[in-house]
Amino acid sequence: MDIKKYLQEKKEIVDKALENYLPNRTEKSGEAGFPTSLRKAIQHSLFSGGKRIRPILSVAAFEAVGGKGDKILPFACGLEMIHTYSLIHDDLPAIDNDDYRRGKPTCHKVFGEAIGILAGDGLLTKAFELMTKPSSGDLAVILDIVNEIARASGISGMVGGQVADIESEGKEVDFPTVEYIHTHKTGALILASVRTGVKLGRGDDETLKAFTRYGERIGLAFQIVDDILNVEGKAELLGKSTGSDLFKRKATYPSLLGLEESRRRATELMESAIDLLNPFGPEVEPLKEIARFIILRES
Amino acid sequence: MDIKKYLQEKKEIVDKALENYLPNRTEKSGEAGFPTSLRKAIQHSLFSGGKRIRPILSVAAFEAVGGKGDKILPFACGLEMIHTYSLIHDDLPAIDNDDYRRGKPTCHKVFGEAIGILAGDGLLTKAFELMTKPSSGDLAVILDIVNEIARASGISGMVGGQVADIESEGKEVDFPTVEYIHTHKTGALILASVRTGVKLGRGDDETLKAFTRYGERIGLAFQIVDDILNVEGKAELLGKSTGSDLFKRKATYPSLLGLEESRRRATELMESAIDLLNPFGPEVEPLKEIARFIILRES
Repeated sequence: MDIKKYLQEKKEIVDKALENYLPNRTEKSGEAGFPTSLRKAIQHSLFSGGKRIRPILSVAAFEAVGGKGDKILPFACGLEMIHTYSLIHDDLPAIDNDDYRRGKPTCHKVFGEAIGILAGDGLLTKAFELMTKPSSGDLAVILDIVNEIARASGISGMVGGQVADIESEGKEVDFPTVEYIHTHKTGALILASVRTGVKLGRGDDETLKAFTRYGERIGLAFQIVDDILNVEGKAELLGKSTGSDLFKRKATYPSLLGLEESRRRATELMESAIDLLNPFGPEVEPLKEIARFIILRES
Repeated sequence: MDIKKYLQEKKEIVDKALENYLPNRTEKSGEAGFPTSLRKAIQHSLFSGGKRIRPILSVAAFEAVGGKGDKILPFACGLEMIHTYSLIHDDLPAIDNDDYRRGKPTCHKVFGEAIGILAGDGLLTKAFELMTKPSSGDLAVILDIVNEIARASGISGMVGGQVADIESEGKEVDFPTVEYIHTHKTGALILASVRTGVKLGRGDDETLKAFTRYGERIGLAFQIVDDILNVEGKAELLGKSTGSDLFKRKATYPSLLGLEESRRRATELMESAIDLLNPFGPEVEPLKEIARFIILRES
């Protein structure tokens, strides 16, 4: 299969759904509108050329277990909104203080810190509004999915990992701490994306178990590759400065294990993730190719 | 009825539930824990002597329509978590830059801005985790409630109102803008609290309609009284500095209509909210007393 074409096609579906879900009413007062600046700030960050890995993983897992139709899209888009809010907040001066993201000025650089904070808050809340809207289908499954996504994004997931990341800056940290940061800051939401697709597509328990182990491995591999790219990636491809982890003395795989060993581990994780899917048929091919793409990407 | 005793009893129930819902595992790495600093920051803000008006409103409305038992508590506590996150983010230097809240240093003053931002994010996400956990009961009603709370808290509700508030600082604004700010920044979540109780308690459509109009009125009255207290309240009772709205040239009822007219309108809203409940029996007495309390409070 042509993975680039697959990713492009799915990205277009996700982008179109995101545009559809974000209200474009712009009245400043009265009725159901909301301030123009807030809409602009959200759109600036949401449509800035993201790869849409999380929503595409949820769609690919949904279709791999036989799911059909569009009902995955509210969850796919919710996952991307949560990811985007986390980037907006991470970029803030008080946290990572980044001026560029995907080759564009970060949200707070364009709209100011106050709007940056509130655009993030708005996107996170919008994700939950969107994901709780479906009123048909198996409502117990929907509630369970939203609950899992909340857990993966919150204090015991992404937010917890981000706090541990900040607190580890400039300190000597051990390997379990780096692993905690990676599996929580990045891994938890990637895993939740895969599991969302399986659950909504009504995959059986055995499938959920195998896909969960796949999701854990690619989630960790994804963050290791991110760390490697921060050291040796090309800034013009990444759209942001490199070397910042080293400068901030962040706890990363390369800083603890070196580049070569980090690359080896990421490749090993990718291969074992693919092996876990071997018992399944051709319907899991996109998930295998996404695992390869995560390792081979240059941005 | 003794409203002070009623509020105290309900507050104790809400406080106990909140303590129960917030995980106290504190491992920094591995397992299901999350960083200690995050837990401390969340607890600092969540247990700092709030009046718990929103959760108590949801409980009072739930019981007024015949709801029984504890199943309102996840929603009551979710509403309070969302309210608390909004206070933490509003207090940040980039937004209102407040050093004190309820007589204590604000979250970011104690734990730093980064943890302040992430504690807010964590609380907001925790609210949705908590509210989507119930797996029994009428799941369609639960999804509908969570969806309404998300809408009330987000870009078309509280976050939208907060952005409009910030953007109005130092400007001449008209009355519809001030009303937009008040009904969205504060009113939306208060209204959602009342409606949550009615929906979960299975009040009929007529009741929901009447309670909605009650909720709209007390939500607006609450913010008008807040604005009045900012002008003439006692700082030692409020636990925060007064006069800050004037200093920041915020768009408020007193700045547009004067103190006397603002007081008159708040009282009128309270009286008409109470009138709306007159067709109901003694079970709505707590809601009537809460309306009076909102107007008469000194903090």
